[in-house]
Amino acid sequence: MSQKPLLQIALDSLNLETALDTAKKVSTFVDIIEVGTILAFAEGMKAVEVLRKEYPDHILACDLKTTDGGKILAEMAFKAGADWLTVSAAAHIATIAACKKVADEFGREIQIEIYGNWTYEDAKAWVDLGIKQAIYHRSRDAELAGRGWEEEDLVKMRALSDLGLDLSITGGIVPEDIHLFQGIKAKAFIAGRALAKEGGEQTALAIREEVNKYW
Amino acid sequence: MSQKPLLQIALDSLNLETALDTAKKVSTFVDIIEVGTILAFAEGMKAVEVLRKEYPDHILACDLKTTDGGKILAEMAFKAGADWLTVSAAAHIATIAACKKVADEFGREIQIEIYGNWTYEDAKAWVDLGIKQAIYHRSRDAELAGRGWEEEDLVKMRALSDLGLDLSITGGIVPEDIHLFQGIKAKAFIAGRALAKEGGEQTALAIREEVNKYW
Repeated sequence: MSQKPLLQIALDSLNLETALDTAKKVSTFVDIIEVGTILAFAEGMKAVEVLRKEYPDHILACDLKTTDGGKILAEMAFKAGADWLTVSAAAHIATIAACKKVADEFGREIQIEIYGNWTYEDAKAWVDLGIKQAIYHRSRDAELAGRGWEEEDLVKMRALSDLGLDLSITGGIVPEDIHLFQGIKAKAFIAGRALAKEGGEQTALAIREEVNKYW
Repeated sequence: MSQKPLLQIALDSLNLETALDTAKKVSTFVDIIEVGTILAFAEGMKAVEVLRKEYPDHILACDLKTTDGGKILAEMAFKAGADWLTVSAAAHIATIAACKKVADEFGREIQIEIYGNWTYEDAKAWVDLGIKQAIYHRSRDAELAGRGWEEEDLVKMRALSDLGLDLSITGGIVPEDIHLFQGIKAKAFIAGRALAKEGGEQTALAIREEVNKYW
């Protein structure tokens, strides 16, 4: 039996104060706290440091979508306290390898953030490097443009899962969609506004209930 | 006759103090100051705000390699004072369009940062959106892995240039390589350590001398 998918809050506010407010609201019902790209660019690594200190027992993910300068960015994120760091699927394989090497040194993990025209050859190269995790999502902008979860997404996710990658799944996650992902090695479901807004705890419970049905 | 390529310093230090020291050293002989991805993730938008204030007459570029959340990140960067913002070639076209729209509202520009398995169809879609600039480079890690400028790079650059994109070129730029790029619509040559280190001004002069031969 595969491990039950975890629940991750993406903190993507424009300032640390708002992010800390949100973290406080959701910390009791999420497993993973993520410093999103927007928050990281807004506040820098201070955001990771402060959240690490406030939440020593949560998994802390840092979504830099690292695309170049892998060694430097990975050292920066892990030194600040991140457990997991995202690396862009569009990065040169040498960049991905550099991030993986640093992660190994720190005993942390990297997650391939899937964007752009990636191929299964690329995915095999990630697995060959020993990478265990990837993130699959509808882009926020594609989502805004009205694209739903499509069969094409699910086919790709199943293929990545079959290659051995644990997937974190994101992009407008709602409890009603969880069943779509059954059979996939889902590491986590990531949500932001859905968990942060009024009624977020109920949404979290509803997601966990669906998770319990299918994993 | 095409415009002469400009010279851009990429500030990629891990803290703002070091970046400001470097900016002070090079500001008299560069046209464009760039808040690099590393600096932006280290210090957040404060880096853009402070450099904007210190250098009101330079072009200020912000290298976020925007991959998602285009509207929010573009507004953040332009509000902080950036003139140009990089957007990843791997971003969904809706993300790129969102960034372009914000840039138009602010009267600023976006630059497509070319990474990953992009296609000429992608490039045509960028041009169709009205985008004028792209950045072409060897990845820092590929460079470390010993890859030089190859004919394949030059063929791609010429094709992008022929599509109408002004290219900023980066990745271990040295004066001796400038001649390789003749015939290309080069917007800028970007360097970091080469300009920041001892003798950087001489390197800048040598690059400009080569530029004057070929543009």
